[in-house]
Amino acid sequence: DSRLQTLLREGHSSTQSSHRLLAYSDALISIIATVMVGNTPSFELRESLQGLLTTKIGVYLMTFLIVTVAWAAHIRLFQVVVRIDDCLALLNLACMMLITFLPYTFSLMATFPENILGILLFCGCVMVIGSVIVLYAFSRPFLLNEQIQISENQTFYKHHILKVIMKVPIMCFFASIFSFIFFQLSYVLLAIVIFLPYISQCLKWCRSKAIGQVEETPDSMLFYTYLPNEPLSKERVEAFSDGVYAIVATLLILDICEDNVPDPTVVQKQFGGSLTAALRLYGPEYLAYFGSFATVGLLWFVHHSLFLHVTKATRFMGLLNTFSLAFVGGLPLAYQLTHEFPPNSHNELEAIQISCVIIFFAGIFQLAIWVVALYNEQETLHPYVRYGGREHVLMLAKLALYPCIALGTFFLTCILSKFSAPIFHLMEITVPFAFLVLRILVRLGLLNAGYLSVVWLHEPRQPQSGQAVTRRLLST
Amino acid sequence: DSRLQTLLREGHSSTQSSHRLLAYSDALISIIATVMVGNTPSFELRESLQGLLTTKIGVYLMTFLIVTVAWAAHIRLFQVVVRIDDCLALLNLACMMLITFLPYTFSLMATFPENILGILLFCGCVMVIGSVIVLYAFSRPFLLNEQIQISENQTFYKHHILKVIMKVPIMCFFASIFSFIFFQLSYVLLAIVIFLPYISQCLKWCRSKAIGQVEETPDSMLFYTYLPNEPLSKERVEAFSDGVYAIVATLLILDICEDNVPDPTVVQKQFGGSLTAALRLYGPEYLAYFGSFATVGLLWFVHHSLFLHVTKATRFMGLLNTFSLAFVGGLPLAYQLTHEFPPNSHNELEAIQISCVIIFFAGIFQLAIWVVALYNEQETLHPYVRYGGREHVLMLAKLALYPCIALGTFFLTCILSKFSAPIFHLMEITVPFAFLVLRILVRLGLLNAGYLSVVWLHEPRQPQSGQAVTRRLLST
Repeated sequence: DSRLQTLLREGHSSTQSSHRLLAYSDALISIIATVMVGNTPSFELRESLQGLLTTKIGVYLMTFLIVTVAWAAHIRLFQVVVRIDDCLALLNLACMMLITFLPYTFSLMATFPENILGILLFCGCVMVIGSVIVLYAFSRPFLLNEQIQISENQTFYKHHILKVIMKVPIMCFFASIFSFIFFQLSYVLLAIVIFLPYISQCLKWCRSKAIGQVEETPDSMLFYTYLPNEPLSKERVEAFSDGVYAIVATLLILDICEDNVPDPTVVQKQFGGSLTAALRLYGPEYLAYFGSFATVGLLWFVHHSLFLHVTKATRFMGLLNTFSLAFVGGLPLAYQLTHEFPPNSHNELEAIQISCVIIFFAGIFQLAIWVVALYNEQETLHPYVRYGGREHVLMLAKLALYPCIALGTFFLTCILSKFSAPIFHLMEITVPFAFLVLRILVRLGLLNAGYLSVVWLHEPRQPQSGQAVTRRLLST
Repeated sequence: DSRLQTLLREGHSSTQSSHRLLAYSDALISIIATVMVGNTPSFELRESLQGLLTTKIGVYLMTFLIVTVAWAAHIRLFQVVVRIDDCLALLNLACMMLITFLPYTFSLMATFPENILGILLFCGCVMVIGSVIVLYAFSRPFLLNEQIQISENQTFYKHHILKVIMKVPIMCFFASIFSFIFFQLSYVLLAIVIFLPYISQCLKWCRSKAIGQVEETPDSMLFYTYLPNEPLSKERVEAFSDGVYAIVATLLILDICEDNVPDPTVVQKQFGGSLTAALRLYGPEYLAYFGSFATVGLLWFVHHSLFLHVTKATRFMGLLNTFSLAFVGGLPLAYQLTHEFPPNSHNELEAIQISCVIIFFAGIFQLAIWVVALYNEQETLHPYVRYGGREHVLMLAKLALYPCIALGTFFLTCILSKFSAPIFHLMEITVPFAFLVLRILVRLGLLNAGYLSVVWLHEPRQPQSGQAVTRRLLST
């Protein structure tokens, strides 16, 4: 039977590894999730900051949420579909096109809430995205996970998975039908699609932690649930995060290139031909750019250090990561604001404080990932960073640095509101050095620690070598 | 001695694999290389198309060139530096910041050619980027390639590599000094930095092919040359290409989200509240979006298929890939133009023809990669796609599809200039189906070919299994 499977698979010789397809999908989705923040319908920046921010942030967060939910579903799907062929690759591209179109349909829904066209378009997109790859892949079993192919009760597995995956398109189907009758109900249905799995699982998890009683799920059902400790592809979480950080880091340079090359005639007339004098006008914008790049780059650096130590990502860690990324994605907006307003105005102060809050939350959610990882440290962390391990303190310090500094800057700008901009920029420029100081402190500590730490700490590049290290340590 | 090395490396326990750092750098650089096309100083689109295009394309191509040269140097550097530590990661982030700043300094140079500030900034950035990582890594030998660490003549290697790498910063140093004396000379020097290695190697290669006489380079020097068959990290070429394709595919949806959500009051007044009627106005833009996404997606698909069959990328293939990507990066500009002009105008026809030309060249350079790979097929290709192999024909057909169709559309729009827009959009929408038809044709052919082809074609996921397949084939 297993030889038959192998032959079947060989006969369909055109299957390929899905690795690069997934990397490309991650890149596309992370771009779409992030760039929308600059692209909400434009307003006059001189208007009230609150009104502007509420609309912008609202639209941005919803877009980010919808796109990341689609991304999470994509991950879940490709945990089952492990091989691809040309046709599946083309179908995936078509789905990607519709995912990039989702924010637009959402904008239509938000602008014309009583018109059913937006709902219909949105539901139509979701229905196609949610069903077309599944149906194709399940009609060609050699594309599926080996676990399913080998398993005895293959049909049971398949039905269980199909039931989980098809829930969303079917609910969208009903939502689109209800939109003709009573459109408010459609919105309720859509909200349920997005939020319910998370809320119900969150409640269940909290309850089980509070009571301490763990429900034993039968082994066959552990696969493909919404449980918070369900494993998530660490590679894809990293790829998606990289995409978001990369886009955010470069968004501001675009503005600079577009607007900040002075006109030669203006330079000649107003500055007597002195380019330096003309460029000095843009000083705050350069500072904002370098500051934003440094902040985003260092947040990426912390994220990188964190995931270097993580051996297995869980769904709950993925959710916290998404929250962190949502705040990171808001940074360009805040930075644009910091240099858009006249110096020392009330608006500038507010913009800077909002930046601090955003940085604070981006850092706090990274810290939360670490805390959650420590809860199950046997499963999720390398031995040398577990509680009490040598690198543990360094990692904690790295993660705590941004929240602490952001908080400090926030209160300092409250007190010394006149110097808010210099304080903020000084903070941004000194943080990289703080990381270097941390590193040096640890290295000095390491030198004293001797051979034991050397054995414990070596070779973070081999995730599977944890046990080997422990064995070696025991034998010495 | 080698145990000492291992201990040394273990002692510096904080080193990490560079994999994710490189992936993030690739993402950043690909974004910077690509998005500049939309961001050249803005012009009135109603002006002459030629003048507009010449400036835009000129600035875009130079930016793309500079950034990809920096990227190539980054690859070369990280073929030597294989491990990173926290400090190197931070230095790399600082270099990335300066790389994102390069296009801006170039804009300053282009706008104020006689002012030395632009040259100084540009040279300063290049000098820092080109030297800081090298100097740090070479002062910590445990970060370097094992090949260098183990080798007998380690100092010779190191000097050879340093000489190659430091050439660029040193020439920039001279360029910045000459800018005070005779600034034209600086431009000449900078041009030499960028173009000379390629031109001289191209000429050398052509000569050796023409005369047939191959100069024997000593084995120790084969490492770290500019020879066109020097291996290039295939992973990084793929990551960079994915970044470019992903950005290009999503650039247009941003325009749509920003501009194409109609104002509720306008819909009420002009269209009697009918959203469908209001959206019908944007028809051409939707078509342009879906068409552009499909085209970019399929070009990615061809690229993906191509690199699935490639086992080793060479420097020359990388160069051709860069040319192909440069044209792909020009697509959003062309697409924006196609729906910016009034229907049936002379400008619209030209914009469409330019799009065809861009698609043609993007495809032709992909085809060229394939042809170059076939030259050294023993080294660079999987056995089942080599000349005469079964998949060979399919791959050739896939690669030839876009150039042929673009050429056909170009001539068709010349003849039937009145219907140029419908022809172009029809072409874009039918191409995906052409790929499916190709696939089906091959599958039909496969069914007849029987067991032999099954053995030949199976398992594209195991790159090393080529010899094993041949052996199995010989034994049957």
